Amino acid sequence: MDGAGADVSKLREHNSLSIVRAMRGQPPATVTELAGRTGLSRPGTDVVVRGLVTDGWVKVVEPDGSTVGRPARRYRFNADAGHVLGVDVGAHKILVLLADLEGEVVRSHRVPVEPEADPAVRLAAVDTAITECLDAAGMRHDRIWAVTVGVTGPVDATGRTTLFTPLPGWASVSPADHLSTRFSCPILVENDCKLGAVAERWKGVAQDADDIVYVLAGMRIGAGLILDGTLRRGYGGAAGEIGALKAVRWLSAPSHLDNCPGMPPEVHPDDRAAWVFDQVRAGDREARAALRRYVKDLAIGAAALVLALDPQVVVLGGGWSRSADLIVDPLAHELDRLCLRVPEIRASTLGADSVALGALRVALDQVDSVLFTDGMPAPLTSGA
Amino acid sequence: MDGAGADVSKLREHNSLSIVRAMRGQPPATVTELAGRTGLSRPGTDVVVRGLVTDGWVKVVEPDGSTVGRPARRYRFNADAGHVLGVDVGAHKILVLLADLEGEVVRSHRVPVEPEADPAVRLAAVDTAITECLDAAGMRHDRIWAVTVGVTGPVDATGRTTLFTPLPGWASVSPADHLSTRFSCPILVENDCKLGAVAERWKGVAQDADDIVYVLAGMRIGAGLILDGTLRRGYGGAAGEIGALKAVRWLSAPSHLDNCPGMPPEVHPDDRAAWVFDQVRAGDREARAALRRYVKDLAIGAAALVLALDPQVVVLGGGWSRSADLIVDPLAHELDRLCLRVPEIRASTLGADSVALGALRVALDQVDSVLFTDGMPAPLTSGA
Repeated sequence: MDGAGADVSKLREHNSLSIVRAMRGQPPATVTELAGRTGLSRPGTDVVVRGLVTDGWVKVVEPDGSTVGRPARRYRFNADAGHVLGVDVGAHKILVLLADLEGEVVRSHRVPVEPEADPAVRLAAVDTAITECLDAAGMRHDRIWAVTVGVTGPVDATGRTTLFTPLPGWASVSPADHLSTRFSCPILVENDCKLGAVAERWKGVAQDADDIVYVLAGMRIGAGLILDGTLRRGYGGAAGEIGALKAVRWLSAPSHLDNCPGMPPEVHPDDRAAWVFDQVRAGDREARAALRRYVKDLAIGAAALVLALDPQVVVLGGGWSRSADLIVDPLAHELDRLCLRVPEIRASTLGADSVALGALRVALDQVDSVLFTDGMPAPLTSGA
Repeated sequence: MDGAGADVSKLREHNSLSIVRAMRGQPPATVTELAGRTGLSRPGTDVVVRGLVTDGWVKVVEPDGSTVGRPARRYRFNADAGHVLGVDVGAHKILVLLADLEGEVVRSHRVPVEPEADPAVRLAAVDTAITECLDAAGMRHDRIWAVTVGVTGPVDATGRTTLFTPLPGWASVSPADHLSTRFSCPILVENDCKLGAVAERWKGVAQDADDIVYVLAGMRIGAGLILDGTLRRGYGGAAGEIGALKAVRWLSAPSHLDNCPGMPPEVHPDDRAAWVFDQVRAGDREARAALRRYVKDLAIGAAALVLALDPQVVVLGGGWSRSADLIVDPLAHELDRLCLRVPEIRASTLGADSVALGALRVALDQVDSVLFTDGMPAPLTSGA
């Protein structure tokens, strides 16, 4: 292609993307409205929209006849043209979310797994969860345009392989390679804290913020960083792993809850935090002191991130969101003591779905990055 | 201006910028060469270059007659069209660098100041240093297009006022307001560690890196962060201030040198580190142990930043660059022990100029951000 041809093709791609972006998540719009939203000329918009309809990216919405006269034709993005999967590989569960190209979740499926499960068992559970989810939605594997898998521990720079993880045997596993025998679309692997951060900016409590420190607070503590609206992966994929540094106390923080005085021996390790929270709510002083020690340690690492990055918002995520009221205030108090400028602290409301939601967003970004390029055939030409 | 007019004006601005960028720091070039570098058409490039010559942005370089036939006319960016100032307000000195629009330093001037000087005395020294520098270069204040002032301590989000600083009384001073009575151009204030980081990426040891953790190691330890090639200021201007957290040990690290066994009482506090380095080179075991303790503490905060951000490069800056050989290896050893992935560690070679150099770069970026916009008249229309 010569220079001018490449420029025209680039411009068409650019205008198509602008119009699709102006349509997504919006009610059906007329060409005039779309021209207004994109800043393109009305005739130019009309040409691009017709092309998008021909290719299957855009659907015509017929007027419902309730208005007098001949109403203008309206258009909407064909969100069903493709779908993406977000998969959360947790210690206790595999959660699969299936979404359309507007990020609307059309199916959710959860399969329990033992924390002690070896990699083969865990990967089999991933396969089961995905297959059951797609079957329930009546969808074939080859209709999926991108898959993102959330895992514990950092993921290498290629976004395929987990580097370190508390899941038994999991560090030697490549979930992307495993799934690539079932899918021909791009498969990305990402750290769960990073995905939690992405989810909060997409559908959570930090939609208004560009600079976010996300702290996953639980019996394991981790962080995900969003700066200038972009997830920080780091040069080798290991950004956010400040918790590995003993001095910031995230490794030792959970022991304060584990060793809370009065803990009955029959309480399962996974339920110890809940037991402490219950005791705190019941007014127990020793439980309150244990929780205070946990928050003090949590605050050291959080303060290190706040002082290093000076974010707009700190989001407190993780499985304890129902007990956030017991953590946010003392955490704010500690940060106030430790930091030069204290950002707003907000508790996540996405609950247990956050990692899988973040995975969906990363999969949608992957689709967006190739939309209208040579690598991505239009829905009608690809038979979708 | 209507939409189409705005588009044309935007395009002209864009093409002018592309051509100026293709000229800067390069030998004089023909229109054909500039078209090749920018990807614009030859006739289009010719029109834009002629306009830039008319406006005074570009100079014609007449052929020297040494070639046979009629050689093509060559053009160069008129770097003398304007100048910028970078000012380092240190504890012991005011350093002023004057540079042209290509960042070439045309004058450097240093004025000593007492660490105990009050703000009025320090600001008077700033005025003296600037005036003497401009006088020596035969330049008026109104020929300066941007000034950046480097200071210790974080600077607020507007980039004008220092928030906290070890310089006596300095926190209540606005260097930008002070200088605005002398200059009508933009005046920016920035933290010295941030400027050190900028300098390393511009002219120092990290020119190839986009993700940089810069650690200023001295009797005061600080950090500047560059991610995706952009200086991180933080939401409130206070990014990089991880040293304020006691747990990462940067506050206590210098005491190991201060209290090095055998330190003669007559050694001035400013010279204690040099004394320790000398003793280490002379083979003194206690001095070596003191330095090792310093590096161990330095490494805790550095590891926190490396684990949080996973940068490509850590640059060790500050006044001790001549002794970097004594610090880099033990620091690398400590980081290896503390981090999941250890980035390359490089010692700065910019020495005492780094803060003022970074200030120049920030001033040049300020000029670039308004080049060819309505706010920036062309050199010949403004009488330059």
